[in-house]
Parts: sequence; structure tokens; C-alpha cells
Amino acid sequence: MKLKMMYSFLNSDIEKIERELEETVQANSIILRESSLHLLQAGGKRIRPIFVLLAGQFGNYDIHKIKKAAVSLELIHMASLVHDDVIDDSDLRRGQPTIKAKWDNKVAMYTGDYIFARSIEIMSDINKPDAHRVLANTIVEVCIGEIQQIKDKYRFDQNIRDYFRRIKRKTALLISASSLVGAIVSDVEEEFQQKLHQFGYYVGMSYQIIDDVLDFVGTEKELGKPAGGDLLQGNITLPVLFAMENEEVRQKVITVHEEMSKQELTEVITSIKNTDAINRSLQISDMYLNKALLTISDLPNGKAKSALTNIAKYLGKRKF
Amino acid sequence: MKLKMMYSFLNSDIEKIERELEETVQANSIILRESSLHLLQAGGKRIRPIFVLLAGQFGNYDIHKIKKAAVSLELIHMASLVHDDVIDDSDLRRGQPTIKAKWDNKVAMYTGDYIFARSIEIMSDINKPDAHRVLANTIVEVCIGEIQQIKDKYRFDQNIRDYFRRIKRKTALLISASSLVGAIVSDVEEEFQQKLHQFGYYVGMSYQIIDDVLDFVGTEKELGKPAGGDLLQGNITLPVLFAMENEEVRQKVITVHEEMSKQELTEVITSIKNTDAINRSLQISDMYLNKALLTISDLPNGKAKSALTNIAKYLGKRKF
Repeated sequence: MKLKMMYSFLNSDIEKIERELEETVQANSIILRESSLHLLQAGGKRIRPIFVLLAGQFGNYDIHKIKKAAVSLELIHMASLVHDDVIDDSDLRRGQPTIKAKWDNKVAMYTGDYIFARSIEIMSDINKPDAHRVLANTIVEVCIGEIQQIKDKYRFDQNIRDYFRRIKRKTALLISASSLVGAIVSDVEEEFQQKLHQFGYYVGMSYQIIDDVLDFVGTEKELGKPAGGDLLQGNITLPVLFAMENEEVRQKVITVHEEMSKQELTEVITSIKNTDAINRSLQISDMYLNKALLTISDLPNGKAKSALTNIAKYLGKRKF
Repeated sequence: MKLKMMYSFLNSDIEKIERELEETVQANSIILRESSLHLLQAGGKRIRPIFVLLAGQFGNYDIHKIKKAAVSLELIHMASLVHDDVIDDSDLRRGQPTIKAKWDNKVAMYTGDYIFARSIEIMSDINKPDAHRVLANTIVEVCIGEIQQIKDKYRFDQNIRDYFRRIKRKTALLISASSLVGAIVSDVEEEFQQKLHQFGYYVGMSYQIIDDVLDFVGTEKELGKPAGGDLLQGNITLPVLFAMENEEVRQKVITVHEEMSKQELTEVITSIKNTDAINRSLQISDMYLNKALLTISDLPNGKAKSALTNIAKYLGKRKF
């Protein structure tokens, strides 16, 4: 089943959000408009807006209000991608040139700032100080995570806790904030708000681990960027940490540096794939997925709960 | 009279804000904490917090509430300085190495993001959606202004309207937002809110013109960075635009480029100073200053109004 089929009852609302996203980044400035639209049109799964809407379904769902929250969360995500591409010096994302590649680092920095700012602006249209607070707290944590990620690069003596802390900030917090904000805006009852929040966190952890596995097992075509790119950039992910428990593999991994040849990198990747690291990582992802499903088991049955369940499973099992 | 003397009745509140600023940037991350503190300790006039507090004096002034707004406005200003230093490739600010010089562009980008985020977070602690909205709108406009500034660099055929539009976004909007937010948080009556808002705008315009004049007439010691730096970076300010009305000067100015020697730059600066451009710029600054003073003439007399009047005059007449 395709992802889109899982929330087909919300299709017209998702289209509204897509239009709202485009309208929101229509700056007067040509550079800003073009760079933002370029980013938007490169696509993406729109997971964060979907989580906002689905969480909102458990309360007083009003698309005109909640769509602003959904757009806001997607924009935060987009802004962080733009700045990440500057840090990671990435030229490709989803098979498209990045803003820093098509323009330059300076344009990318300010485009990211602008999208950040628009995100906060559109959220401030909703009269829900609690939602503003969640958004603001989340952005702070995401920023701290980004600095952490720079610090941890090529740090081969880090442990699994460092990794979990990093992906929590990098991915899980924004997805859990999406569910929570959706719930707040729709006045979902307190107990369910907390469960939706927790659910988003577990799904985010499961999702990011899969993402990190795919960087090893995916093809360049599937990933929209060369495989092994994370490792080459010094991002030590879960499969790497598991594989390094083998001393022979460890000795290979610690030779990784930005300038190494494709062939050398391929050898390191192969040695990682030859361990049980991929399978163990997938098991951890599964564990988070199961926690996610357990967390929402008490929520009222219906379309929204089915959709959340199916999406969580899809994200935890996806091939690219 | 020194600036600090003009609002001495608020000195203990300003100290509270200084402490709150330091506490606010105390991140767990060492890099973030050090880079943010470095920035904070480089000083600054704290004009935006002062405007927040003084505007708040016309309503129900509560330092515990309003100090958060004051900190938020100063942090936005600081964040934009950090990102500006990346764009302008500046190594010195207020006589101190910039974050991008002491660390690098990547750290500067994320430190800016983090401070931005903390600013929004601390404002979201106050239950005033109107204040959240003003802050968010202002950040968007400031970002658009930053991109505009990149586009306008070394564009010698720009006109005075381009300049005014740019300094409005670069400086005036944040100062006027400071007065407005201070007024909103203290529930100042609507009519006075608008006047304080307008006042901040005029003071900001006057202030920025003086700043641009000082880049020509100030010494390196007074400025904390080499004189003529704006022009060297391609920022075409009001004195330059006035001076270029003289065709001979114009021919010299359009030769300016980033790599030119100090001696060549000094010649261009001298030719600008030999016209009436500095005086005409000061007259425009004065005009804005007078509009500012007229705008608040109807406000109730008292310490706050005297302070605003004196500060506006001081900023519009300062020597560095």
C-alpha cells in the first residue's frame, strides 16, 4: 500500500496544505521565492503535516485552523534541511541540487532563516499560546541537536547513547511536536494529547534508524544522493556503531575521512554490511515501532487511528 | 549626558535583563554556550530592551513579565548580527573577534539559529499572542531585508528609496517592534501603542543613518572595526548615494570592490567626505529625529517620556 492511500480521507486537506505551503513562501524577493519554491517542489513525504492533521482528528478538527499548524511544522523541517545542507556541504537532496549548490551558502543561510521565520509567523496566526510554546521549545532543541551533530562528526569513540540523543533531536522531537501541536490546536483531551506526543516520538526514532540503515543498503537512485554519504560526512549512525563492535571493522571505519576515494568508502561499507549491524539496527527500529503502536492502542478506534497505525508501520518498514 | 543616565530609574531592571540574557543562552552545548556568551559580553547599547521597558512604563509595568519580552528582542538582534557577520565576512565587531572568526561560519550559522530560537521561546512564555505575532512578523521582514541587502551589494545604480527600504528592515522595524511589544505586554492603551510603535520606527531610521555616517567619519578605535568597511563590503549607504550625485565622485565610487587596497579605499572615502553628503545625511537623520519627538508629544509626561526623548536625541546626535 502506498503512503498516500493510508490517509486518503484527508487528501483534499493535504492538497490545501500543499497550496498553503506554496503561498507561504511567496516572498517579494525573487531569490527567496525561487529558492524556497525550489525546495518545496523537490517534494518530500510531508510526514509532519500528516501527523498534525491526524492528531487533530481526535478533537475538534477545523482544517482552516489546523492547516496553519501543519504548514508551520513542515516549514521548520524544510528550514533545518536548508541549513543542514550548508553544514554537510551537500549538493544533492532528493535527486535535486540543494539551495547551497544552486545558489550559495549565504543564500542558503538566509533562505533557511526566512523559512524559519515564516514558520513561526504562520503559527502565531493561531491563538494557542501552548502551541506556540511547543513549537519554540522544539526549535531550540533541534538547534542544540544540530550543533551536537557537528561536534560528534568523525568522533569514532562515541557510544549508542550519543546516537540516540542525536536522532531524538534531529528527527523524533519534530514529529512528536507535530502530533502534540495537532492535538493542542484541536483541543484533544489531555490524556490523548500526551499519548499522541509519545507516539510521534517513537515513530520518529524508528523512522530515523531506518533512514540511517537505508544510507547503507539503498541505491543512489533510491536515495537521491550517493550511498554511504552519511558515513563519508562523519555521521556515525547506529549500523556503524554496531559494526564497530568488531575490532577488524572498527579499524577500517576509523580511517574514514571526507577526502577518501569512492572505492575505499565502498570497502568500508561492505565490511559494515557483512556484520549483523544492519539487522540489529532494524530490530531496534522495530522495537520503537512496537512501542509506538502500543502507545496509541487506547485511543478511540476509527480512520485516524488506523491511518496512524499504518503510517507508523510503513515508515518503519520502508525501502526508501 | 551618558546614555545610561537617561534611564537611571530603570537601572535595576536593566541589570535583571542582563542576567536573564546570560541565563537564556546557557546551553548544555559548550560551543553554543561559549559562542553566545562571547557575543553577549562584547556588549552593545541594549537599545531594544530599553525601548521595551520604556514603552511598558505607559501601562501596567510588570518587570517579571516584560523582562522576557526585552530579552527576546535583544536576542533577535544578536542572532541577526551573527548571521550578518557570516554574510559580510566580518572578523571584528565592537573590537572583538566575531563568532565566524573565532570559530567558523558553520558554528556561526547554528549559534545564530539557536539564539533566534531562544528568542522565540522566551517570548512564548508570555501569554500574549499579539506580542508573539509582532515578533514573528518582524523576524520575517528582517530576513527579507537581509536577502535584499545581499542583492543590493555593489549595485551602484540603486536609489535612495532602495536605501530607505533596506534600513527600515535592517534597523527601524526591530526598534519599532520593541516599543510595540513593550506596550502590548503592559496593556498600554491602543492609541499610545500606535504612537510608541511609530516613535520606534523614526528613531530607528535616524539611528541607522547616523550609523552609516559614522562609518565614514568615525575612527577605527571608535567604530571597533576599520572605517569605510560598509562601502568596501558593497553596502551603498546614504552618504554614498548623495555623494554620487557628483559625477566625478561617482566615477570613483563605482571602482570600489572587495579586494581594493586600503589606500585606494581611503581616496574614495575622502572624495565622499569632500562633498556635502555627510551634512545632507545628518539633516535627514535630524528630520526623522524630529518626527520621532513630535509623535510622542501627546504621551503623558513623566520619567518614561523624558527618557525616550533624551535617548532619541542622544542616538540621533551620537559620535560613535
